[in-house]
Amino acid sequence: MLSGPRRHPRPLMADSVLTTKPSIDSILARAARLASDYLSENKNRDRLVVDWLPPGKLREKLGLKLPKEGRGLEAAFTDAQSFLKRSVRTGHPYFLNQLYTGSDPAALLGEWIASLANASMYTYEVAPVFTLLEEELVRKMGKMAGWEDCEGIFNPGGSISNLMAVLAARNAAFPHAKQRGLLAEDRPVLFCSEEAHYSVPRAASVAGIGIDAARKVPVDSIGRMRPDALASMIQKALADGFKPFMVSATCGTTMPGAFDPLEELADLCEEHKLWLHADAAFGGSVLFSKKHRNLMDGVERTNSLSWNPHKTMGVPLSCSALLLPEKGQLKATNALDADYLFHDTAEAYCDRGDMTIQCGRRVDVLKLWLSWQSHGDEGYRRRVERAFDLTASGRDLLKLRDSFELVREPEGCTLLFRFLPPSLREQERDEAWNEKLERANITLRERLKHEGRIMLNYASLDGLATLRLVLTHPDLTVEDLRFILDEMERAGANL
Amino acid sequence: MLSGPRRHPRPLMADSVLTTKPSIDSILARAARLASDYLSENKNRDRLVVDWLPPGKLREKLGLKLPKEGRGLEAAFTDAQSFLKRSVRTGHPYFLNQLYTGSDPAALLGEWIASLANASMYTYEVAPVFTLLEEELVRKMGKMAGWEDCEGIFNPGGSISNLMAVLAARNAAFPHAKQRGLLAEDRPVLFCSEEAHYSVPRAASVAGIGIDAARKVPVDSIGRMRPDALASMIQKALADGFKPFMVSATCGTTMPGAFDPLEELADLCEEHKLWLHADAAFGGSVLFSKKHRNLMDGVERTNSLSWNPHKTMGVPLSCSALLLPEKGQLKATNALDADYLFHDTAEAYCDRGDMTIQCGRRVDVLKLWLSWQSHGDEGYRRRVERAFDLTASGRDLLKLRDSFELVREPEGCTLLFRFLPPSLREQERDEAWNEKLERANITLRERLKHEGRIMLNYASLDGLATLRLVLTHPDLTVEDLRFILDEMERAGANL
Repeated sequence: MLSGPRRHPRPLMADSVLTTKPSIDSILARAARLASDYLSENKNRDRLVVDWLPPGKLREKLGLKLPKEGRGLEAAFTDAQSFLKRSVRTGHPYFLNQLYTGSDPAALLGEWIASLANASMYTYEVAPVFTLLEEELVRKMGKMAGWEDCEGIFNPGGSISNLMAVLAARNAAFPHAKQRGLLAEDRPVLFCSEEAHYSVPRAASVAGIGIDAARKVPVDSIGRMRPDALASMIQKALADGFKPFMVSATCGTTMPGAFDPLEELADLCEEHKLWLHADAAFGGSVLFSKKHRNLMDGVERTNSLSWNPHKTMGVPLSCSALLLPEKGQLKATNALDADYLFHDTAEAYCDRGDMTIQCGRRVDVLKLWLSWQSHGDEGYRRRVERAFDLTASGRDLLKLRDSFELVREPEGCTLLFRFLPPSLREQERDEAWNEKLERANITLRERLKHEGRIMLNYASLDGLATLRLVLTHPDLTVEDLRFILDEMERAGANL
Repeated sequence: MLSGPRRHPRPLMADSVLTTKPSIDSILARAARLASDYLSENKNRDRLVVDWLPPGKLREKLGLKLPKEGRGLEAAFTDAQSFLKRSVRTGHPYFLNQLYTGSDPAALLGEWIASLANASMYTYEVAPVFTLLEEELVRKMGKMAGWEDCEGIFNPGGSISNLMAVLAARNAAFPHAKQRGLLAEDRPVLFCSEEAHYSVPRAASVAGIGIDAARKVPVDSIGRMRPDALASMIQKALADGFKPFMVSATCGTTMPGAFDPLEELADLCEEHKLWLHADAAFGGSVLFSKKHRNLMDGVERTNSLSWNPHKTMGVPLSCSALLLPEKGQLKATNALDADYLFHDTAEAYCDRGDMTIQCGRRVDVLKLWLSWQSHGDEGYRRRVERAFDLTASGRDLLKLRDSFELVREPEGCTLLFRFLPPSLREQERDEAWNEKLERANITLRERLKHEGRIMLNYASLDGLATLRLVLTHPDLTVEDLRFILDEMERAGANL
């Protein structure tokens, strides 16, 4: 019989512990106070979103230098405070610049505990709890997509999720590519819309297929991929001797937040045996809402689905899931069976490391898990539906004012519009006018950024700069929207 | 003239703030106490590294379920506590299972503040401070590699860094591949050693080149790539009509921690115009030490370098840099110029988003920055040199005991050895003996894991299971090593 494990001969403690412990305690306690104050200040609309400085001046102000001799924990805390002060307040309701905003305290707690535990998600044995949490979240999110069972993995962002979808689709259509590389006779092409995220053509580039092989399908008046156009592009590709293998649909496009029609795309994919991927990095959270779920009708017919809870669900970056209804695809695509990591133990069936293109992998599931516990399905549903309602109100507000022109009817939670400066309002719309309008909109947006009270983004749409408001912050109100439009009119009055 | 920005009409505060603020305060304060207690308990060797349960039992114990109605922040905190209790204590000195261990408080603080700020690293305008920190860290780490100037980017782990090195090398040798895909006449091959990390052949697979095109060069008796073997494999590939384009050297291999001879590999790469990549994910930190830097002599002649501070430098996962001495390669390889993200502003030259295969990207630099401030170059130097000294002592301890057999002379901070159970010690070494030895070593390792006091890993080397101790924890002492060997002898006595 084995004797029990021996007790350690003495309570070995490094000398450093006793002296540094109070300081660690106090620094972490101060970090907690800093955090709760910071989160609470996010509610105050009079706080700047950014205290703007250009790179040269900011560099000077921060005086960045790494020391030869250590400056200790106290100095690190002082630096952290000053960095936070000069950073963009992405949790402020007027941070409307990106597709993510809002900081959820339960999710922040999850991130804090995850970094404390500092597990890596490759094997059950080193990350037992987080492995089970990931399994459970994958199952739950898959169920919401309409799948009784599915597989999935959390990735560092939607671009990597989309890349892994392209790799899984490539592996299904060209299974030799993993071992032998792409062959001359393969001639793969995939399709996404003109307004798909750039990570899709880039995934084609990464995967050795090339950007040109990611063919861009035209969109309709509100930004949805046109199935008729896709159908003829597939025919054309086949006639030219290419092998179409994938359609990447977007649920919530980057600019107008539009949803490609999954049912019709699924029909085409079935007909031509193509892999249907749904890039729902932005839009996936509509699955919480009975009212808006129809935007993703047909999602249960896709072969893979990207969904980023770090967007509308308010968890810190990054948290992106790739879900697939057919089990085994991720391992088939990515496994290399490294024997120094993956062992033939009783719990090996839980190991998730071979499902990804990563090896070490952060715990991105705890923050989502705790946030979900805190809010429940219903809390997320309310958040999503609130954003849709607010977008409808924002659209109506815009339409009531002469200073703005709606560019797209919103399908999701994004408003696309242009500011019409007083000087241009009554003039004839020719090319010179267009140029002036473009300049005015970019200037207005830069002014707002430099003032630091409101951050919003823009991009070119139909050849003209178009402003974008992403209205997913859970504290944003109609009153706020009025204020934001007032501010734009004020800052753009002399343009 | 513009009028100044209008003040917001009223101090808009959601009703929820006043009622939830105290609860957020108290939860974050409790998280801070939990964290400082947890870090301090890591010093106590009598704490279990893991309170082991197999997946089925753990699942039952945790009773994982996502609720329809939210359970609030308090419930989330209770869950977090119980998850932490059931997780592996990766900061414990006896967590010797992976290439990372030890939790640095300054780095933890950095992770906490980074998740609070929740910036995404694509543009200067949304991440001004963190963009400058990344620039500065890239410059500093590049200088340590011997480059006056360089470019670089932080990636979610060494596998992605290695993938991006393969993509950059592919782009340099086959510049058409990005746009048009790989062509039949390309026939690319790359080289890495037999003991290189599996992320290198997998990167070849991802990049459309194929695993077979990642050719494995034999190693010498301590695990270093053999330049003579590489030279003949290059000749053979050329003679067969392939196009060699890259050599991926390893600085600190996964099993023995060996360092490939960069100078000799650089000579060969210069001769054949091959891209030389150094995968120093594990070994990069020897650059802090004058005493051991010679292991990476020639690093200044490489074309790219992966280096993971989340390994020996103790910052939480993940923190991995890819550094390149020639500027412009990352953008040339990865840029798609998405106009909805990257604008032609005065500060656009600072935008880093187009240098990666990601879009949204976590802030992985703040934790490293604060840790570096706290410890300085000298603190890291001491940590690295301490690990080397400890490894030398560990080697000597092993050699003194009949129960162990050293498998490789250590070049880095890893001990590879086999346990010789009393029952096998005096027997003839034939195939049956080998099988028994293999079984005994795996059983011993599983026993230790199930007891939960010590976690170490193993892999097959020369066809036989080989145990590995990674000795980089900053608190680990020679006394600890004696205890660990005693424990192995105790737990393996009846094998």
